[in-house]
Amino acid sequence: MDDMPHKMVFVGATGHSHLVLGELEHYSQLRYVACAPSYPGEDLGRIEYVDADGHTPQVYDDWRIMLDRETPDIVVVCGRHDTNGPIAIEAAQRGCHIIAEKPAGHSLDEIATLRRLVAEKGLTYASMLAMRYEAPFYTAHQLVRQGLVGEPYLVAAQKSYRWGVRPDWYGRRSTYGSTMTWVGIHAFDYARWVAGVEYTSVCAYHANLGHPERPGCQDVATVMAGLHNGGSALFNLDYLRPEAASTHGDDRLRIAGSAGVLEICDCGSRLHVITDEKDTPSWPLQDPGRTLLGDFVAALEDRGDLLAPAEEAFSIAEFAVRATQAADERRTISLQTG
Amino acid sequence: MDDMPHKMVFVGATGHSHLVLGELEHYSQLRYVACAPSYPGEDLGRIEYVDADGHTPQVYDDWRIMLDRETPDIVVVCGRHDTNGPIAIEAAQRGCHIIAEKPAGHSLDEIATLRRLVAEKGLTYASMLAMRYEAPFYTAHQLVRQGLVGEPYLVAAQKSYRWGVRPDWYGRRSTYGSTMTWVGIHAFDYARWVAGVEYTSVCAYHANLGHPERPGCQDVATVMAGLHNGGSALFNLDYLRPEAASTHGDDRLRIAGSAGVLEICDCGSRLHVITDEKDTPSWPLQDPGRTLLGDFVAALEDRGDLLAPAEEAFSIAEFAVRATQAADERRTISLQTG
Repeated sequence: MDDMPHKMVFVGATGHSHLVLGELEHYSQLRYVACAPSYPGEDLGRIEYVDADGHTPQVYDDWRIMLDRETPDIVVVCGRHDTNGPIAIEAAQRGCHIIAEKPAGHSLDEIATLRRLVAEKGLTYASMLAMRYEAPFYTAHQLVRQGLVGEPYLVAAQKSYRWGVRPDWYGRRSTYGSTMTWVGIHAFDYARWVAGVEYTSVCAYHANLGHPERPGCQDVATVMAGLHNGGSALFNLDYLRPEAASTHGDDRLRIAGSAGVLEICDCGSRLHVITDEKDTPSWPLQDPGRTLLGDFVAALEDRGDLLAPAEEAFSIAEFAVRATQAADERRTISLQTG
Repeated sequence: MDDMPHKMVFVGATGHSHLVLGELEHYSQLRYVACAPSYPGEDLGRIEYVDADGHTPQVYDDWRIMLDRETPDIVVVCGRHDTNGPIAIEAAQRGCHIIAEKPAGHSLDEIATLRRLVAEKGLTYASMLAMRYEAPFYTAHQLVRQGLVGEPYLVAAQKSYRWGVRPDWYGRRSTYGSTMTWVGIHAFDYARWVAGVEYTSVCAYHANLGHPERPGCQDVATVMAGLHNGGSALFNLDYLRPEAASTHGDDRLRIAGSAGVLEICDCGSRLHVITDEKDTPSWPLQDPGRTLLGDFVAALEDRGDLLAPAEEAFSIAEFAVRATQAADERRTISLQTG
């Protein structure tokens, strides 16, 4: 892209908009010009943003009209779960670069279409797989790559959230998606990325057991995946974390390898590493020194790479969709190609 | 049984013989009269036991001859994994009460035969599922029964061991069995017992990845089970715990229920309970005040019950065998009857 300011718009205010807005002040080349709801009636309070740098986004009712009139360089897609894939596809069709909430899509078709468009048009596509930027996960990724735990054979990850207040549309699968595509995808991604593995098969289970007022939202899900190296991965996901818990979430990762065990524990805050030589309960954490928005801008300007490349965002969304399918159809799905 | 001393013999010195010998001094009504190897060449050093109370077990080469000549009241079966089912069956056929290493058998047929004999002959059968006696698990069982975490919907358990030195016969499935039947069975049992659930289906995975010198021993295993209440359970088992780890094993249990989350962590030593009202990182542990041998003697003398009744020992062994089968055959097995 040239040196002109990059015109940016937002569609939707449902997801992790702060990953962009919270960093916007650091990138004077970005101009936040407009926003629109991802569905009628969406509260845009979180993205109707005016700051000292003069971002004064115009509010549209219809995101298609906004895209047509504003012809933005960048579309931030952050809407109701079911809308993110279709909106990103239309943005890509218009040649816009994209920062999108995960998952990239709710169906294999959506994801395939998006992958094709992003490749054909040479777009920068950043997925909000922001847990890669958290120091324990980032550090763990480096350590496994350095061979500290040897070959990873057994991976176990957890995402557990408080239920809190969930919007009405969590009650319908058609709008919510699944807990694997919305929550599990983080764990699927950080486990795969940190361990450096590929998933070759998946069987899974999910159900709404404790929150009948939102039947479309599975408050319990479990996933078992085969790994390319003959190992296995387990994921347990729930919305059963009690209100009195010390944090909203309790994210974990454990990797048992041929030469050591690495674990992210204490609600995602501590990195415990054990090798045959040494037990280190609190491994020093390395701050990545980069952000999702910073990487996106750098990629746009050919100065750097995304920490979560588009293809990894697409393939992990596919995995989440297949895992959901495995649970719905109660069967093991092979993911091996060729 | 009458008030005469109970004649007790040991077959095998491979398993957790200390659960009996370590408590023997407290039960003057037991007379340890003889022992024999479970297979030719087995080292009996751990059970050739003489104490101040005058237990001077005679050592036999052949356990069948020992059973015939000594006509014991009690047989402790503690041999090489594959021998425990067949030896227990022969002991039961002779009308002996039994304390046996888990699993009760390596095949569904063995377990069914043992179940039938124990019922027909009115025998006391105690399985060495001794983790139920550990204070964190015992306390957790009481808390779940009291309803502290509500209905348990998601159960996750771990057994991780150092590899250390494993005997030659770990190298063959025919003698070792599987890591699910030998190690996993503890987790299957304590998870089921603490959560108060039944397993309705199982899919599983296992492999030997890091220890090719013992190909019959799976150093990684993962298990996913459906629960009777619509929930799900996950188990991860490994022999990948590094030598520098603080303990030999790292046993865990997490139960997420409709009203709270209960967790046994810090290598099985700490009980963390979170309800909607309170987060209690170290719940006070309740010592069970009983032992496997004490319960066995009490059951024999009609003074008490086993903490792990025979039927639960049989059904959890069946589950471990079915889980192994699920992994070997790469399919999900339904466990629901009728």
